[in-house]
Amino acid sequence: MADAVLFEFLHTEMVAELWAPDPDPGSGGKRKSLSVLEGLGFRVGQALGERLPRETPAFREELDALKFLCRDLWAATFQKHADGLRTNHQGTYVLQDNSFPLLVTMGSGPQYLEEAPKFLAFTCGLLCGALHTLGFQSLVTASVASLPACKFQVVIQKS
Amino acid sequence: MADAVLFEFLHTEMVAELWAPDPDPGSGGKRKSLSVLEGLGFRVGQALGERLPRETPAFREELDALKFLCRDLWAATFQKHADGLRTNHQGTYVLQDNSFPLLVTMGSGPQYLEEAPKFLAFTCGLLCGALHTLGFQSLVTASVASLPACKFQVVIQKS
Repeated sequence: MADAVLFEFLHTEMVAELWAPDPDPGSGGKRKSLSVLEGLGFRVGQALGERLPRETPAFREELDALKFLCRDLWAATFQKHADGLRTNHQGTYVLQDNSFPLLVTMGSGPQYLEEAPKFLAFTCGLLCGALHTLGFQSLVTASVASLPACKFQVVIQKS
Repeated sequence: MADAVLFEFLHTEMVAELWAPDPDPGSGGKRKSLSVLEGLGFRVGQALGERLPRETPAFREELDALKFLCRDLWAATFQKHADGLRTNHQGTYVLQDNSFPLLVTMGSGPQYLEEAPKFLAFTCGLLCGALHTLGFQSLVTASVASLPACKFQVVIQKS
């Protein structure tokens, strides 16, 4: 399915573009690129969040919103579901993907681990933006222990 | 279909990001942003060109390659076919789309016309990149007479 790979190709090229040699090395390039990707993801997540759950009742419970991310948002973005969702029942959730599509194209040796954050920033923003549309403020971070598996930790901010 | 809108949302946000107030107004921002979008499109088009025609025999004729863009590349990217293809049989082709998805979200009054190029640059690159993979060097430009219709002119470069 070519339209599935379109997003992945575009994501790859956005990352490459943002990591192209920085003409202004004094501008904190790396951190800025990560936050640009995260911001793009956030706004796309907001828009997807508005679009996706049209037939779904409002998400009153956090857990429903998180299940929605694992199923519907993952399906819309990666054509599969996330592999696992765990929670401490105190507002912290961990989404697990055992073969994260945006990491699959990288090599899988430990020497690639330090390259991983730039392939995860967009999705961190995406999750945070979708949750924002669903009425939840959150902090989302990602971690990789063994490529191409990764975890997204979502901490819901109580108002 | 949410995965169809994913590309459109992402494209919209890329354009917005590239047109965010330029911190360095002396750097020819507009032209640079257009060429960044076109470059992204080119590399995505190259990759799609490799991926799409796996079951298709090689494109020996230009016209076959152009028909492929109008049908398969358009379907993969915009979930529809282009509305028309004309040629002067001397290496110049015009692809017509009467309701181009990346222009549909804009307003349609004539006052928006000058905004159109930034929503067309990525697709110009996409066409050029896909043709490059198929073995044809080309120049691709876009024009809009009446939103949201547009035309892409492809001039094949003879070697």
